[in-house]
Amino acid sequence: MNFKIDKRLFNGILNTVSKAISSSAPIPALSGVKISVSEEEVTFIGSDSNISIKVVKKPSEDLIIVEEGEIVIDIKYISEIVRKMDSDIINVELIDGTLCRISGNNSEFKINGMRPSDYPNINFDHNTDSFKIKTSKLINMVQRTIFACSDQQVRQVLTGLNLKLNNQVLVASGTDSYRLSAVKSVLNSDLSFNITIPSKLLSETCNIISEKEEVEIFVSDTKVFFKTEDTLILTRLIEDAFPNTDHLLNVETSQRLEISGKELQDAVDRTLFIKSDGRSVVKLKIDADSVEVTSSSQEIGSSHEKLSIIKYEGEPLVISCSGKYLSDAIKALRSENIVMLFRGSTKPIIIKADNGEDIIEYISPVRSYD
Amino acid sequence: MNFKIDKRLFNGILNTVSKAISSSAPIPALSGVKISVSEEEVTFIGSDSNISIKVVKKPSEDLIIVEEGEIVIDIKYISEIVRKMDSDIINVELIDGTLCRISGNNSEFKINGMRPSDYPNINFDHNTDSFKIKTSKLINMVQRTIFACSDQQVRQVLTGLNLKLNNQVLVASGTDSYRLSAVKSVLNSDLSFNITIPSKLLSETCNIISEKEEVEIFVSDTKVFFKTEDTLILTRLIEDAFPNTDHLLNVETSQRLEISGKELQDAVDRTLFIKSDGRSVVKLKIDADSVEVTSSSQEIGSSHEKLSIIKYEGEPLVISCSGKYLSDAIKALRSENIVMLFRGSTKPIIIKADNGEDIIEYISPVRSYD
Repeated sequence: MNFKIDKRLFNGILNTVSKAISSSAPIPALSGVKISVSEEEVTFIGSDSNISIKVVKKPSEDLIIVEEGEIVIDIKYISEIVRKMDSDIINVELIDGTLCRISGNNSEFKINGMRPSDYPNINFDHNTDSFKIKTSKLINMVQRTIFACSDQQVRQVLTGLNLKLNNQVLVASGTDSYRLSAVKSVLNSDLSFNITIPSKLLSETCNIISEKEEVEIFVSDTKVFFKTEDTLILTRLIEDAFPNTDHLLNVETSQRLEISGKELQDAVDRTLFIKSDGRSVVKLKIDADSVEVTSSSQEIGSSHEKLSIIKYEGEPLVISCSGKYLSDAIKALRSENIVMLFRGSTKPIIIKADNGEDIIEYISPVRSYD
Repeated sequence: MNFKIDKRLFNGILNTVSKAISSSAPIPALSGVKISVSEEEVTFIGSDSNISIKVVKKPSEDLIIVEEGEIVIDIKYISEIVRKMDSDIINVELIDGTLCRISGNNSEFKINGMRPSDYPNINFDHNTDSFKIKTSKLINMVQRTIFACSDQQVRQVLTGLNLKLNNQVLVASGTDSYRLSAVKSVLNSDLSFNITIPSKLLSETCNIISEKEEVEIFVSDTKVFFKTEDTLILTRLIEDAFPNTDHLLNVETSQRLEISGKELQDAVDRTLFIKSDGRSVVKLKIDADSVEVTSSSQEIGSSHEKLSIIKYEGEPLVISCSGKYLSDAIKALRSENIVMLFRGSTKPIIIKADNGEDIIEYISPVRSYD
């Protein structure tokens, strides 16, 4: 194996594949990047067995293939070398068994690699149906829903973000069963699927593709591929059924509040430090004139703030919920004014943007005694 | 107790005193800021018993004293309130026992404080001799020596930075017994002292005073005060004797190398990942033409780099030392070219700046077999 590569190109590739490589890899070989050189291309693979990334580069003026071959090199070492090398061109050459020579200018490193046969076989075949989506659109949908996913492993499916495509409408939903955030978006594809992607892997994927214009997504029952130009990202899916939340969409509500999102969020944020048993609960006392935002904890103390409103319809209401959940939900709406819908003090709060965007937030109320 | 204070002023004060407050305070009261209001001034104190900070503010258009009194409030809560408050003026008032009302605009917080009598009595009297120094000069001396202090508690005195004033020369020295960094600077004061300040406390102190022009320092046998305008910082000293390093200053050397500091540092930095037993050792092979920088580890591999030199006098030399120590030392010199002085391969390496600055670095060599 022998190739010459532009330092910046190499650095970028290693940076990409390293995102799939865990510092506590279950198999030693997975702490490395697998580099495979054929006559036609050089392939770089990183994986932690949950997410796998493959970058394929054809020869160019930045990449000259000299000799075929394969090696696995610890990502820490090769990244460190390439990052600090003061040469524009870096030569990578297998010199003896798994000993790899990395050189440029006056510096030369001989690094002990690992055998390619010790690297797990990862199937990157993606012959399923696919659709294309602007990465900015996908990332927008993910960012505004992923925060609602659970971080508890008790119900594993809730640690994933659900993506559902049907009748050319793509819906992203995250829920931990106490709150839900869902965004809809029209998508020009006749595909139909319902998949749940582990939220950490999806968020890593969004990081990797964020600088590309468009991503092509290949969906199967057990895995999903994200493809941009020369990079292919494979992540596993959560196969358990995601809870159906359609019934939440068409409920009669009895109270409707219009209020400045920023003012309510700021007021709620100010109370977040007032915790009881590690949780911050905020109480809203709503009538035709104002909203009183209060919170209290025996240990820490209490807060009180009165906000003006834009409009309120319905009977006066007192309702409590997690302050953090309310703040997160308003942040996700990204709307100057928001609409809050209620069905009394014991049923979920529904919050929508009033700027026409198809995003909806649900928060379960909590009981508060005082 | 009752006073009104400008939000930005209050925020700045809390930020300063919080630097002395530990989140794992040994006494509950030390998790708080002690606020004392008299007719003439408001005093804010934060302490973790190793470092204590007192800020004193006289009444002004930004601070109006309404009523005398004292309270201790958890720094987390009050900082959070003041930071997020959307009012320019904040009112702080003791309303019942230790219950403290903090309010502004439409927000009101009632926070459970702690009794001032539970707060340890900290003696801020500083009637000793003092000297003044530009903060930029002090910080420069500290930054270029503090890295050499030990982080091991085995010999506690080595975890401190030594400051010695004698014949109008101030010397700052840090050493972990394997390396030493010392900076000299002329100071217009006839005082004479030899103190060792715990390096963490000194570095915290430098952070706090960094935006001030000048600092006045009061030295006693057991503690030192740093005074700027309205802020007084008290830190304890390490009372054990700091090792005398004067004998290192006048040694005959047999070899002298002049080389680009940046080129040598970059070459050494590139080898730092090559560790054996967690340590990176770099070997220098020096002759009249060049320096070869090599390092190797059975597990990881090896590196080799050849550097051109400016000038070398003496017999050819092979010497090994910690790569990290060599890199740190060159960084501290901040000199384009550096001078390295040797007495064979088993005696400490001396490194100096060639830009006339009075800074000196010593590094013990290590044996290397191969």
